Amino acid sequence: MKPDLNINKIIRTALQEDIGQGDITTQAVVPDTSMASGRFIAKENGVICGIGIAGQVFRLLDPSIEFTPHIEDGQKACAGDVIASVSGPAAGILSGERVALNFLQRLSGIASRTATMVSMTQGTKAVIADTRKTTPGLRILEKYAVRTGGGKNHRFNLAGGILIKDNHIRAAGGIGRAVEATRKNAPPGFKIEVEVENLNQLDEALVAGADIVMLDNMDIETIKEAVKRAGGRALLEASGKIDEKRIKEVATTGVDIISAGALTHSVISVDISLRLD
Amino acid sequence: MKPDLNINKIIRTALQEDIGQGDITTQAVVPDTSMASGRFIAKENGVICGIGIAGQVFRLLDPSIEFTPHIEDGQKACAGDVIASVSGPAAGILSGERVALNFLQRLSGIASRTATMVSMTQGTKAVIADTRKTTPGLRILEKYAVRTGGGKNHRFNLAGGILIKDNHIRAAGGIGRAVEATRKNAPPGFKIEVEVENLNQLDEALVAGADIVMLDNMDIETIKEAVKRAGGRALLEASGKIDEKRIKEVATTGVDIISAGALTHSVISVDISLRLD
Amino acid sequence: MKPDLNINKIIRTALQEDIGQGDITTQAVVPDTSMASGRFIAKENGVICGIGIAGQVFRLLDPSIEFTPHIEDGQKACAGDVIASVSGPAAGILSGERVALNFLQRLSGIASRTATMVSMTQGTKAVIADTRKTTPGLRILEKYAVRTGGGKNHRFNLAGGILIKDNHIRAAGGIGRAVEATRKNAPPGFKIEVEVENLNQLDEALVAGADIVMLDNMDIETIKEAVKRAGGRALLEASGKIDEKRIKEVATTGVDIISAGALTHSVISVDISLRLD
Amino acid sequence: MKPDLNINKIIRTALQEDIGQGDITTQAVVPDTSMASGRFIAKENGVICGIGIAGQVFRLLDPSIEFTPHIEDGQKACAGDVIASVSGPAAGILSGERVALNFLQRLSGIASRTATMVSMTQGTKAVIADTRKTTPGLRILEKYAVRTGGGKNHRFNLAGGILIKDNHIRAAGGIGRAVEATRKNAPPGFKIEVEVENLNQLDEALVAGADIVMLDNMDIETIKEAVKRAGGRALLEASGKIDEKRIKEVATTGVDIISAGALTHSVISVDISLRLD
Amino acid sequence: MKPDLNINKIIRTALQEDIGQGDITTQAVVPDTSMASGRFIAKENGVICGIGIAGQVFRLLDPSIEFTPHIEDGQKACAGDVIASVSGPAAGILSGERVALNFLQRLSGIASRTATMVSMTQGTKAVIADTRKTTPGLRILEKYAVRTGGGKNHRFNLAGGILIKDNHIRAAGGIGRAVEATRKNAPPGFKIEVEVENLNQLDEALVAGADIVMLDNMDIETIKEAVKRAGGRALLEASGKIDEKRIKEVATTGVDIISAGALTHSVISVDISLRLD
Amino acid sequence: MKPDLNINKIIRTALQEDIGQGDITTQAVVPDTSMASGRFIAKENGVICGIGIAGQVFRLLDPSIEFTPHIEDGQKACAGDVIASVSGPAAGILSGERVALNFLQRLSGIASRTATMVSMTQGTKAVIADTRKTTPGLRILEKYAVRTGGGKNHRFNLAGGILIKDNHIRAAGGIGRAVEATRKNAPPGFKIEVEVENLNQLDEALVAGADIVMLDNMDIETIKEAVKRAGGRALLEASGKIDEKRIKEVATTGVDIISAGALTHSVISVDISLRLD
Repeated sequence: MKPDLNINKIIRTALQEDIGQGDITTQAVVPDTSMASGRFIAKENGVICGIGIAGQVFRLLDPSIEFTPHIEDGQKACAGDVIASVSGPAAGILSGERVALNFLQRLSGIASRTATMVSMTQGTKAVIADTRKTTPGLRILEKYAVRTGGGKNHRFNLAGGILIKDNHIRAAGGIGRAVEATRKNAPPGFKIEVEVENLNQLDEALVAGADIVMLDNMDIETIKEAVKRAGGRALLEASGKIDEKRIKEVATTGVDIISAGALTHSVISVDISLRLD
Repeated sequence: MKPDLNINKIIRTALQEDIGQGDITTQAVVPDTSMASGRFIAKENGVICGIGIAGQVFRLLDPSIEFTPHIEDGQKACAGDVIASVSGPAAGILSGERVALNFLQRLSGIASRTATMVSMTQGTKAVIADTRKTTPGLRILEKYAVRTGGGKNHRFNLAGGILIKDNHIRAAGGIGRAVEATRKNAPPGFKIEVEVENLNQLDEALVAGADIVMLDNMDIETIKEAVKRAGGRALLEASGKIDEKRIKEVATTGVDIISAGALTHSVISVDISLRLD
Repeated sequence: MKPDLNINKIIRTALQEDIGQGDITTQAVVPDTSMASGRFIAKENGVICGIGIAGQVFRLLDPSIEFTPHIEDGQKACAGDVIASVSGPAAGILSGERVALNFLQRLSGIASRTATMVSMTQGTKAVIADTRKTTPGLRILEKYAVRTGGGKNHRFNLAGGILIKDNHIRAAGGIGRAVEATRKNAPPGFKIEVEVENLNQLDEALVAGADIVMLDNMDIETIKEAVKRAGGRALLEASGKIDEKRIKEVATTGVDIISAGALTHSVISVDISLRLD
Repeated sequence: MKPDLNINKIIRTALQEDIGQGDITTQAVVPDTSMASGRFIAKENGVICGIGIAGQVFRLLDPSIEFTPHIEDGQKACAGDVIASVSGPAAGILSGERVALNFLQRLSGIASRTATMVSMTQGTKAVIADTRKTTPGLRILEKYAVRTGGGKNHRFNLAGGILIKDNHIRAAGGIGRAVEATRKNAPPGFKIEVEVENLNQLDEALVAGADIVMLDNMDIETIKEAVKRAGGRALLEASGKIDEKRIKEVATTGVDIISAGALTHSVISVDISLRLD
Repeated sequence: MKPDLNINKIIRTALQEDIGQGDITTQAVVPDTSMASGRFIAKENGVICGIGIAGQVFRLLDPSIEFTPHIEDGQKACAGDVIASVSGPAAGILSGERVALNFLQRLSGIASRTATMVSMTQGTKAVIADTRKTTPGLRILEKYAVRTGGGKNHRFNLAGGILIKDNHIRAAGGIGRAVEATRKNAPPGFKIEVEVENLNQLDEALVAGADIVMLDNMDIETIKEAVKRAGGRALLEASGKIDEKRIKEVATTGVDIISAGALTHSVISVDISLRLD
Repeated sequence: MKPDLNINKIIRTALQEDIGQGDITTQAVVPDTSMASGRFIAKENGVICGIGIAGQVFRLLDPSIEFTPHIEDGQKACAGDVIASVSGPAAGILSGERVALNFLQRLSGIASRTATMVSMTQGTKAVIADTRKTTPGLRILEKYAVRTGGGKNHRFNLAGGILIKDNHIRAAGGIGRAVEATRKNAPPGFKIEVEVENLNQLDEALVAGADIVMLDNMDIETIKEAVKRAGGRALLEASGKIDEKRIKEVATTGVDIISAGALTHSVISVDISLRLD
């Protein structure tokens, strides 16, 4: 992922947050002319994500710092692997270290969990998708990490897709009317997705011509029945309480998409550290 | 926590991220005049944090939305408890729901984990502290969540405290010189903290007059020995691989502070949902 | 349209642009205590758009100014109609007048031209859509003006829809491959639109399963043939050199969507003025 | 025009508006390593303006894109002329194309219309000036386009010049008092301009010592009489309903300045396209 | 001075600068429910400026704080006078105190020095004007303070007035040519000011038709001679090394304007304190 | 001082403030191709500070301008010394001159006054420290200037140190309780400083275990007595009405720190000018 204007803004905010008015310890102890080099090392196995971001952290901090990736985003690292190296003015490296690691560890955590879930659905047609349950301010990066782990992105935000939920249905007076209103009023380039809670609603959504139907919090048997009833007339998306225990079974029901909030709302960081030489 | 300029900026960024150019589904389906009300309900036990933030999300989105907290930040909620209620224009409530929940679930996750760790150190003098391993852009909120859970805040950022680490020591040519340089060059209002990796370094730090010594990644026996050697000459902080399995044992060694990166870098959200009436 | 965070930012930028360090004439001549009132009057016929924006201009400038709309966005005004009234401190009204009018005149110009084109396609199934040929920085308002005039919004930006163009086709090695790559890599919530330049390409796009096909710069006969060939398998969008001379004929070919860049790139303002009492 | 801090901010806003979270079509279809080149071609005659802006769009997006102007701002292009060429990573070129064209077409539209009006006043002493009827957020560029077309800039904003209008006159209790208040209270570096609606007011303004008098919406005979009465005591500016039909006649009356809102509020874009090789 | 968008931005920057992530002392010691009230008291004589700014500091920090001015900007306060009172939540008052005072003391310092210089020129026609030698970021406030003290504002910035200096003259090849270029190329609403270093240059500037001539660093005799030579053909401005020792003599030479950089570049704050009850 | 994200933002704000929409004089008179060079010359003796800032002003304005420092921040310049030279496009140099000088003169003024005070305390153990009485928006630079002049920085802002003042003491119900509350609630990395007004309070603060005690506005005799009583149990800081007349006497009392608001709130600029060749 090439750092663009959005990404640079996020990184600058993070740097200002962590450096504040200046790194007082380093300023007091480390001479301006002191140079350093070091290596980013994975301390446990994981799918790495955020190498480009980490590099950009140092570049925005001090363009004279050189950052060299040793692997690419999406590759697996084993404990002990060197994933990147950095060299240049010691003060800049020390000041940027924590921000670079905070991005790298969190994004790698997301990519790793996604990759795990994706591998558990091998042999089915189900793709793994994220949700809007992301960390405020970091969605663009977290959705990138999901892609890096092999997942797909659900709509980016409320402007980036149509999803008719319970409350929209009630406001419109039924699934049919809600779909109709959307077709009439919303931009034509979006598929129409409807969230349903039972098989009757599924039938209504199919009749209304929904392009995608989200099966919310259904048990395995019901999902299976839903797949049968839909018969390919709409894409089916399973959602709700998706985790490593349940995902394989959900995937084998024949749904097209499985969306999992946990990919981004409950992230265990991959442990990575910067070892200076 | 009263939402101030910093907090409002974070919330505005989150709202723009999630709403983008507008909620196309709601615009297409829900009339502008439609009103709604609902309740935020805990779906599992936890220490709640972020009620004020959630309320501010709606206020910034539409000042005519009313948000009423039912419990205060820091209180425990059980599954099923109503933690707040909201009422007003349906469109605004639907558009703000996800952002409010994203803050509330994450901050409650941090407060809950902190509270658990704090309770495990009851009867010892150890306080639980956070680190700089926070989510980029959210540190001010995440450190607030740690306080809400009963923890203490370590330095906010590189400008907010002195911590002499390995690399500073090498750059200065020893612990004694590094402490001396800090005392000479850094502002006088900060305590001087030194990170040490073994008992020899601890001795050096004590001789140098460090105010706080961070014992990095030491085993229980070494920590015990460190407490003995220090004899109250400096505050001692245990750090590295602190989790629920190990924290009690660490606390009983007699250290003053236990800092745990996992409080913020690996957060399991508390499940909370908005149920519209 | 309720002014939200995006809109407020645009208005604040416009106010700072026009007021700079302060209205030196008004400061020199008009006492702070001077009050005024006035009416916004249409000086020619048109569909009015931007009343809410104009009101927000004054509210952001001075909350004590009262602004009362007399008609709603989307209604037609005739020359001489009062469309809104304003009263309060004279200095604020004088300072905000030009900014309010600049928004109101331009947005009404867009809404009016859209309404004209929409009325010319009455009795056909074609909807009128905008493009990305908008004024930099004002897209959210200009697309709103198109909706106000009865048009539909094409994708908001490059992240808000899939449109496979000539260069994408060449990069992918054919329409089939480009559609396939999109289906595999892009988020599932978007329809896939392909821009074609001739009927052979149309056939390819239909075979590839495109949801929407944009017919770029085709003559009327070719468009008619395209409608016949497509036979409802995809939505068809006519694009290129759409203006009032040609639109009716294009609409009667049976296409589903007609997109017109001129709606926003070549706008004749509706003449509106503020008459102080 | 060298892109400065103001211009870069406008361009960044435009890029973020058009690219959003990323160009999903290009990301799905075009490999990161794909290179491209192309030429910007005028599809109709016009005075080109915005070449430097278009180049900066690409530079800010991706510094590795090379942009080469073939003509300079202010030169005339004929249909078919190549006005610039661009080469580099295909993804960046495709993502920046629309923003570059939106600036280029609009600014060239303004420069072209200005040049037309200027040429119609050849042989008179009248200069053509713009107004504050510009597109919100783009004034600095639109006024530059007017200069590029051979026009002059009226005051940039309310802080950039003194213009005593009807309402100021009433608030002050007459033209004489308004001019006097301005001379007393406003900074000394500005000329004092007064807007008048009839010849009596002109006389008052001349007596009061106005440096410039704006003749608002007067017919040709009245303007001629005004020129005679003023006899060089003040600069005279004709304003109101200035278009190509009327401008020559107005210029021949002997006024010094003709200001035309239509230069910026009603712009027909010059058609320019990017043809990739 | 009514706080507008520009002013609010300056105040918000100042509050964020001084409060950072929060007032840790007050948070630790003062209960949220604690209320306080206090009075701003002049501790020495001076012309007060910034009362409205100080009030806005508290309003932006916490709208529930009440701030009541006791005197108006521009009035003289004697040591001991109460200039404003404040009441509300103690935490907010303590957190805003320093920022409010920093504005108030500095602006009052500027207004007081201006008032002193103005009073020293009583009986002459000379007005006192400021320069661009202001504190970066605070110009709009500092120029307001000069007006509050009875001075006039020279051009706000490089876009707000024409001043032909030595280097412009050399680039143009003489004063005559520089004035001519300006008349031809610059907007017509500005007076043309020329800076001259001797009487020969003054003659050239007068011949060229300069509206204002700045006499740079001339001694009293030369200024007198300049006034005689100009004979009212242009306004004359004396500039350079203007302070309280010299200003009276300069004023009595008959110049129209005296500009003094020291008004803003070398400010002695007026001592003001907040006494809590 | 290396210009970082914070500094660049301050410089950009200053440039936009001073240049506005563009330097109209230079644009009218100086050809774009005109080159220039010049030297920054001290016109009086002083400690120079801000050379790096001045260079960055030009770099941000036009990267093709070359700026060469002749001395380093912290060195003394005598009247007539060349402190830096600059060369490149004349337009950029003329446009950046005033902003560069405004920073340079003010920061050198602060550094010079600090150096004077520091030299007056030679032979004592007292260090000179700044306060929060800085110019709004420039604190990071002004505190840097104090360091450049040989002073120390007191806390950066309310989040950067603990200082228990009168009002905190009253809110807590005594010095002991306030210190206790701070120890319990505030982050552990800060020393606890208490401001006292008399010797009784000093005793209380010492008993409470304060790390630093600020002696507010005490006369020399009382300060001497305080030093005796404290006997090294806490650092002592003298504050209030510190100026060149009194500082030596205060320093010889044996206090550790002397803090002087005047260092930043009442600054006499060092006169520096740019002489073009």
